[in-house]
Amino acid sequence: MRDVAVIGIGMTKWGELWEKSLRTIFTETALLAIDDAGVDHIDSMVIGCMSSGLFTGQEHLASLLADYLGHGPVPAVRVESACSSGGAALRQGFIEVASGVSDVVLVGGVEKMTDVSGHEATYALGTAADQEYEGFHGITFPGLYALMAAAHMHKYGTTREQLALVAVKNHHNGSFNPLAQYPFEVSVNAVLNSVLVADPLRILDCSPITDGAAAVILCPVEMAKKMNKPLVKIIGSGQATDTIALSSRQDITWLESTYLAAKKAYAMADKKPQDINFFEVHDCFTIAEIMVMEALGIVEKGQGGKAVQQGLTALEGKYPVNPSGGLKAKGHPVGATGVAQAVEVVKQLRGDAGKRQLKGARLGMTQNMGGTGGSTVCHIFEGR
Amino acid sequence: MRDVAVIGIGMTKWGELWEKSLRTIFTETALLAIDDAGVDHIDSMVIGCMSSGLFTGQEHLASLLADYLGHGPVPAVRVESACSSGGAALRQGFIEVASGVSDVVLVGGVEKMTDVSGHEATYALGTAADQEYEGFHGITFPGLYALMAAAHMHKYGTTREQLALVAVKNHHNGSFNPLAQYPFEVSVNAVLNSVLVADPLRILDCSPITDGAAAVILCPVEMAKKMNKPLVKIIGSGQATDTIALSSRQDITWLESTYLAAKKAYAMADKKPQDINFFEVHDCFTIAEIMVMEALGIVEKGQGGKAVQQGLTALEGKYPVNPSGGLKAKGHPVGATGVAQAVEVVKQLRGDAGKRQLKGARLGMTQNMGGTGGSTVCHIFEGR
Repeated sequence: MRDVAVIGIGMTKWGELWEKSLRTIFTETALLAIDDAGVDHIDSMVIGCMSSGLFTGQEHLASLLADYLGHGPVPAVRVESACSSGGAALRQGFIEVASGVSDVVLVGGVEKMTDVSGHEATYALGTAADQEYEGFHGITFPGLYALMAAAHMHKYGTTREQLALVAVKNHHNGSFNPLAQYPFEVSVNAVLNSVLVADPLRILDCSPITDGAAAVILCPVEMAKKMNKPLVKIIGSGQATDTIALSSRQDITWLESTYLAAKKAYAMADKKPQDINFFEVHDCFTIAEIMVMEALGIVEKGQGGKAVQQGLTALEGKYPVNPSGGLKAKGHPVGATGVAQAVEVVKQLRGDAGKRQLKGARLGMTQNMGGTGGSTVCHIFEGR
Repeated sequence: MRDVAVIGIGMTKWGELWEKSLRTIFTETALLAIDDAGVDHIDSMVIGCMSSGLFTGQEHLASLLADYLGHGPVPAVRVESACSSGGAALRQGFIEVASGVSDVVLVGGVEKMTDVSGHEATYALGTAADQEYEGFHGITFPGLYALMAAAHMHKYGTTREQLALVAVKNHHNGSFNPLAQYPFEVSVNAVLNSVLVADPLRILDCSPITDGAAAVILCPVEMAKKMNKPLVKIIGSGQATDTIALSSRQDITWLESTYLAAKKAYAMADKKPQDINFFEVHDCFTIAEIMVMEALGIVEKGQGGKAVQQGLTALEGKYPVNPSGGLKAKGHPVGATGVAQAVEVVKQLRGDAGKRQLKGARLGMTQNMGGTGGSTVCHIFEGR
């Protein structure tokens, strides 16, 4: 296997982009990444997208995007793993470069979610759960995470305020990210008094519905060294699945797929959780970030809520989590999220993160999750 | 890169499987492949599926299928490239084994198409075209291929009877395939007098709407040699894209993505078209097989119709095409088709193809196409 580097990143402003179609959003973003990499061609494209079929009535997505990007006839394929589609695309691109099949691979993630009604969007997102055993009975995604939150509060004493503090932290970080959908601060009181979605989760516990894309350019490390670029390597990649339905799990307060995917990524990188300087994780709901920190091994089981309260994961904490603002403030165009996490990690490792720049960060990790943890993809990046 | 072998294949009866859900169809098929390979574990799963979202309201498909197959927590990812989703999944699995990331990879393809109305199925299939520039104006998939057929007839003098002869040949082959959806003969007269769908294409020029799955198990050749199995190697893999909309093409009688994907596969395998003993190709409509033969280099441009008439591609011809019965007779569960082509090639190379067995076949090739040729994936297999 060849060593793999990230030599280009691209991201545009996320939000409700009613004036732009899926292809436009992707193309603008991908061109930024190609420009940043300074390459004059790409060998292949891998696109993460959860449900362009249900959101926009368009499948055959990778071919369409290769065509509109002006890079057809390169091989192009779409990868789907619900909300971890972007991370899964990054992994396929990583494998393709590592294998020697392709040298320069564009990995993109994209989702156009606001062209349908709220009801249709909720339905489309629900297809990440088990439709026959969960969706059929009427439960929505916030409903499933509400069950996990309630169980975590009951089992470990996690408090409503601790959940709110995740949103407060991520909106604080996001206020320094001009590309975020909601780049503003929220207070604990605002979260606690926001509209109830699925008890105990309120609207400010939930990541938003977003249009957006993100892209990275991968190539072999040997090739990257010859280009005059700050070198960021992917030194670990891990992926795992879990039961898709919550009802099949032994313990709905534990994210086994995240634990296993991280374990594989740590093993490939030959690192421990404590070696990693910062994390971009899948905070689709506030409770998710708390559970992810536990599964990644940053804190002990059940201690995620306390850790947030103590500032461990703040921008200036020992293990900053979601310096970008996370899904919560940055937005969550589901197929793009996993790639955007990589974009943030590379920005931090290059020292290009502006007002949210972490000092001395050399190792960053991404954790991108599908459904209620039915799938997870983790990557570890090394800078300098 | 490591050399890659196919050590297990699985396929079940295709048709309108109203009594089985998507997960059941896939699981039964995958278990056959695992059993055939004689492996006690798999390292990873890659699933080809075009539109489980629109056909069954289920995304996050690979996680679901890993779970129901009882092989979670292995990494599992879905790959989408419209009707070439299966071929694209095979290529990702090939790359994953070649890279060294995984040893034993299950590549599956599946589609459950009959749980929706005919109108909804036509809509879902139409998402393989450019929805903004083609679908929006009301054209369907048969309509797009009808344009290609009319142009080919006009430019090269291809006749209505030659189109019919593709269906006659493939149904003849399919009559020897007990797993085919329509394992019976049709006559030229039957095709010519069948219901008009989109002039000049009639219903017996069209592949059917099908529920079905197919699966193969891949591993490194070195590992396969240690198992007491007939050795089938994948010696070539090529993928390419073309403009997604017909209106963007210079010449709608030419399949550039097939030409380019095949060229790459031939180059990797160090073979010429004339070296290949037989082909499994994407005959979604009769005109498609004629155009594919030309793009693969089996015949000159414009000579596809005559070649069928002369028996070149018959079971006993010089270059048999679609010994399985093709999409036309075997059925076309879109995401499964590309994997099922590999299943047939391996059966032929093992000498296990029953009444349709080709004598002395040592090299077989698959060509799997998305949309109107917006994407193509080709593989070359070597037996013995």
